[in-house]
Amino acid sequence: MDAAPDHSACVRFQNAIELIGRRWTGAIIFVLMNGPASFSEILPQVPELRDRLLSERLKELEDAGIVVREVLPSRPPSVRYALTDKGRALEPVLQALTRWTEGWAQAETPKGG
Amino acid sequence: MDAAPDHSACVRFQNAIELIGRRWTGAIIFVLMNGPASFSEILPQVPELRDRLLSERLKELEDAGIVVREVLPSRPPSVRYALTDKGRALEPVLQALTRWTEGWAQAETPKGG
Repeated sequence: MDAAPDHSACVRFQNAIELIGRRWTGAIIFVLMNGPASFSEILPQVPELRDRLLSERLKELEDAGIVVREVLPSRPPSVRYALTDKGRALEPVLQALTRWTEGWAQAETPKGG
Repeated sequence: MDAAPDHSACVRFQNAIELIGRRWTGAIIFVLMNGPASFSEILPQVPELRDRLLSERLKELEDAGIVVREVLPSRPPSVRYALTDKGRALEPVLQALTRWTEGWAQAETPKGG
């Protein structure tokens, strides 16, 4: 741990934590760690997640290079979402955070919407 | 990784990531990992962090049991902030996220304020 992290490292860290900290983004990544899934497969696995918010989150994760949208050559074509290598590399982060919440955090309803 | 995390685990996870994901909170925790520090010692180590925001963040971290405020019996009394056990337990989370940002994330200025 560096006492005075340089500015760009600090900003990268903050960007990353804000991205995965958006409401239910971590949960969506967790679901995709089990393998690619369609929109309607992801939706019921995340409590309180609505259609519109899932679309938005998937778009953000695509833009960030964490999730890739795959169009399967079925008839009709079906779409599923998969983690990229960058996305799979988040596994140790989510695991560490899960262990911390299991050990220390209390269940409260998040504030705001 | 569980395909369908139960609701309360999901909410705890979300609370935790939103707490440490607030702007500069991760950076403040990083600084305190080097040991207790006074307000004026923390401030210059986090780029773009203003007085008022640091007060707010320290208060949130105190409320969450991550930081404790220590009043030293000096004359005049001086105040410093230290991580609790719960706060120090965040070290693997911040380390994993730092490794991920070093490997994958790009430096961009965070959006919004």
